[in-house]
Amino acid sequence: MARAQQDLQNFALRLEVEELYTEYAHVLDNFELEQWPQFFTDDCLYQIVSRENRERGLPLALMRCESKAMLTDRVVTIRQTQMFAPRALRHLVSSLRIAPATADGVDVQANYAVLQTLVDDETRILSAGRYIDTLVRDGDVLKFKSRTCVYDTVLVPNSLIYPL
Amino acid sequence: MARAQQDLQNFALRLEVEELYTEYAHVLDNFELEQWPQFFTDDCLYQIVSRENRERGLPLALMRCESKAMLTDRVVTIRQTQMFAPRALRHLVSSLRIAPATADGVDVQANYAVLQTLVDDETRILSAGRYIDTLVRDGDVLKFKSRTCVYDTVLVPNSLIYPL
Amino acid sequence: MARAQQDLQNFALRLEVEELYTEYAHVLDNFELEQWPQFFTDDCLYQIVSRENRERGLPLALMRCESKAMLTDRVVTIRQTQMFAPRALRHLVSSLRIAPATADGVDVQANYAVLQTLVDDETRILSAGRYIDTLVRDGDVLKFKSRTCVYDTVLVPNSLIYPL
Repeated sequence: MARAQQDLQNFALRLEVEELYTEYAHVLDNFELEQWPQFFTDDCLYQIVSRENRERGLPLALMRCESKAMLTDRVVTIRQTQMFAPRALRHLVSSLRIAPATADGVDVQANYAVLQTLVDDETRILSAGRYIDTLVRDGDVLKFKSRTCVYDTVLVPNSLIYPL
Repeated sequence: MARAQQDLQNFALRLEVEELYTEYAHVLDNFELEQWPQFFTDDCLYQIVSRENRERGLPLALMRCESKAMLTDRVVTIRQTQMFAPRALRHLVSSLRIAPATADGVDVQANYAVLQTLVDDETRILSAGRYIDTLVRDGDVLKFKSRTCVYDTVLVPNSLIYPL
Repeated sequence: MARAQQDLQNFALRLEVEELYTEYAHVLDNFELEQWPQFFTDDCLYQIVSRENRERGLPLALMRCESKAMLTDRVVTIRQTQMFAPRALRHLVSSLRIAPATADGVDVQANYAVLQTLVDDETRILSAGRYIDTLVRDGDVLKFKSRTCVYDTVLVPNSLIYPL
């Protein structure tokens, strides 16, 4: 029975992680940007870095927010920019690799692709890459203490303003 | 123990939903079209609508079937059209968002991409978008009472005949 | 309670299968090639075949390894080839269809897409297709007794050397 209990806890954690990633994807794809900071802890780190810079250990980031307050600022900025209406975004997230939970949280990695459809154009791969995350429990729910989006795709400057 | 029982039921439902989506994708990718209507209830609604029309509340649909009998008719029509052999289709389904079950069924949303490979051409994204579904239990198994495929990608007329 | 026990075993198997596919994808995407043979049994079969050849029953394969030793040889060959550094690969795996376990193992099918990003180029679909696998328990862990990668995408000769 102890084994069954352990199994149950593992399943429960896995589903909880999957649900977090699912909600995150839908919120962004639905352009419900105001909800986006709620996936993070107050003292979170959110950054978007290129695969090349990460492998070289360079600290350069395309976007870097060091608190939930900075994420909220970012949302305001994006909303003031008028260039985002006429497109569709679609996240595909796959291969969630969940490390055993520790006192510091749960480390998770996942592959992602974001597909973008502009008006009267075919659907293209806007960005492919990997999420490297640390989740912690904040009250009742899991949140991102740290999310690093490591992108393979060289992004055009125009596309940088929306989170991945 | 009550919590564990509840967890188990949730896991079971989630796996059942995942299996339905998995079978659906494989049946279409394998061109086993005759099996496709079996995923639906007799009084089902199946429709393919553009993201734009859905957001504007327009009732226009690229395909609209209001019963399983209409789905079966559609299969016959597709089989009589000879244009579908020389291609491969491949569904990628991600981010299943499963709402709590109610007396009316289970609401589920998911992201999809359908990749298409024509002979001697590279693989392209035929359609990306979202499934918006209601599942109900029909005898022992879950079926689609309603499936709405909301596509981001503007489809070329030539590609319309095959379900998503 | 017997039903609950059975459910638990099914969940455990499903998660174990998902973890195997997840690890496999990350190892290849991280270019940790030396770890790749460890996913297979000693007497494994690994092959990459085109959808067309498979449907016609032709024995032609783009890559065919009939033991773990041959996989290890393949790794050495790839490492001696210098053409693989400047690119990123990203697996998307979806729709795992897991058959009931038998004495011979567990049959699994899944859809995959491998996205490739070359330096200064956009992200493209390198290969899309299906895994057709048989898993067996080897000591404590599940391994591939057989993995057949059936690709939809006609690959350019240049890309053949890296496993899918």
